Amino acid sequence: MTDASPLLLAPNPHDPRLTQAVSGVNERGERVETAVPVERGLTLYLNAQEIVTMMTINDYPEYLAIGYLLNQNMLHPDDTVTEVEYDEDLAVVVVRTERQTDYEGKLKKRTQTSGCAQGTAFGDLMEALEGVVLPRAELRTSWLYRLTHAVNTTPSLYLEAGAIHGCVLARADRPLVYMEDVGRHNAVDKIAGWMFRQGESGADKIFYTTGRLTSEMVIKTVRMGIPILVSRSGFTAWGVELARKTGLTLVGRAKGKRFIALAGEERIVFDQDLAYVEEESAKNRRKGAGDE
Amino acid sequence: MTDASPLLLAPNPHDPRLTQAVSGVNERGERVETAVPVERGLTLYLNAQEIVTMMTINDYPEYLAIGYLLNQNMLHPDDTVTEVEYDEDLAVVVVRTERQTDYEGKLKKRTQTSGCAQGTAFGDLMEALEGVVLPRAELRTSWLYRLTHAVNTTPSLYLEAGAIHGCVLARADRPLVYMEDVGRHNAVDKIAGWMFRQGESGADKIFYTTGRLTSEMVIKTVRMGIPILVSRSGFTAWGVELARKTGLTLVGRAKGKRFIALAGEERIVFDQDLAYVEEESAKNRRKGAGDE
Repeated sequence: MTDASPLLLAPNPHDPRLTQAVSGVNERGERVETAVPVERGLTLYLNAQEIVTMMTINDYPEYLAIGYLLNQNMLHPDDTVTEVEYDEDLAVVVVRTERQTDYEGKLKKRTQTSGCAQGTAFGDLMEALEGVVLPRAELRTSWLYRLTHAVNTTPSLYLEAGAIHGCVLARADRPLVYMEDVGRHNAVDKIAGWMFRQGESGADKIFYTTGRLTSEMVIKTVRMGIPILVSRSGFTAWGVELARKTGLTLVGRAKGKRFIALAGEERIVFDQDLAYVEEESAKNRRKGAGDE
Repeated sequence: MTDASPLLLAPNPHDPRLTQAVSGVNERGERVETAVPVERGLTLYLNAQEIVTMMTINDYPEYLAIGYLLNQNMLHPDDTVTEVEYDEDLAVVVVRTERQTDYEGKLKKRTQTSGCAQGTAFGDLMEALEGVVLPRAELRTSWLYRLTHAVNTTPSLYLEAGAIHGCVLARADRPLVYMEDVGRHNAVDKIAGWMFRQGESGADKIFYTTGRLTSEMVIKTVRMGIPILVSRSGFTAWGVELARKTGLTLVGRAKGKRFIALAGEERIVFDQDLAYVEEESAKNRRKGAGDE
């Protein structure tokens, strides 16, 4: 994002598989061409069992598959993944584990969480939060402004084609992994999958999302063991309640100079002189592209 | 929205059940109070069968229940709904139909659509589109600008608390029903449920959403029999493809003067002199609140 801190994984807006050029008319009736993000079906198997078909830009099927299973609590942090097979022609990804798995029952149980609901077995996610204690950590406002600026200025599918969500995993003021997807939950899951594969701990991380701070987003961040969640978007009441219960630092409406923290404020260190923070420029403003 | 055309149903931003005041700190470390939308679990039964638990602001449980079942193709337009029971204490809504229903199988089949995925049985939705022919209709750009202006200036939960989606059902330049919810799919479903209960046809309607123009949004609009779908947000490739297949007029990125139509352009009548259209004011700009 800045030359000083190259991303380990960044969006590739020029990957021709991820966007499609379409033609239409604008408000003056003029013929125009524009780019839109592509969404593909990807069917996920855990060992012998078909779990779900996801709609994704499909840039990281392996990370998406593993992250989805982790966030659905179908794969446990201590599980051994023996193999991940991806067949591009069949649009199938198979995750094999040492542990035998059977989620027949779980697949019948569905709660629609707010925002990007995933038919998540919500009760199980709540159970999985019990006993989780998030580590002590620091969020310096100087990091926060550098991170949000970096996200807004990194070349991305969003800037290319809009209608896409972004998530960034960061350490202090350094963005490490920037994932995008048509479904915000996919972007989160791809980062969870990357962390699992790299054996990265969430303890020293900050999670940034373009999406709203819903209960689902809070639960996933806590499950990743990340103590700080930041968004340019707003809050829901249950998201705030869960963040307070779990001790997550929840920062929302982070745009330009402004932000508001509704949980875990004690982790915030106000070290930034606001006189040196730019307001968000129209060029970098996300024009509702994440709306969903 | 304008005095000339009062809404039949409008958001009630001052309903104390829909928002909650929470306190936090702002970027200067100052204590601030803000309002956030409340989300509640609502468990839906179709006759004797538990279908799903939805997270919703729960302002119209009956419309949400019926609209959800319609959009999942579990309730058919010609079905007779004999009773809808809502129990506020149990947070349960039961829809009873003349026809016997059994969706055990369907509940096992899940595809996550992009954006606000709902564990929709997508194959079934696609089948339900076969043979659908959308009526001839007109979208005058003068209507479009009056509608978007009306939506942006109507008192709403969004303006009060953010982090919420809005959908509007309109006829010509007149907004009829404006629904909001934490999950965009809920706002759509509530309008579908209202149409079913009122016996309203979609043929002479225009559907406006703050959310992205995903495949799921296109499918739901077509299923409602509405020939024109407008959004301030962007497109996905599959959304555009489905709109073209089904003959839906798809207008996106509609903000201030600007919009782009990627399907069904032939329905658009460019009757508005753009010199008299205001750019969207910062006050009315949706500040990513719908992000999800």
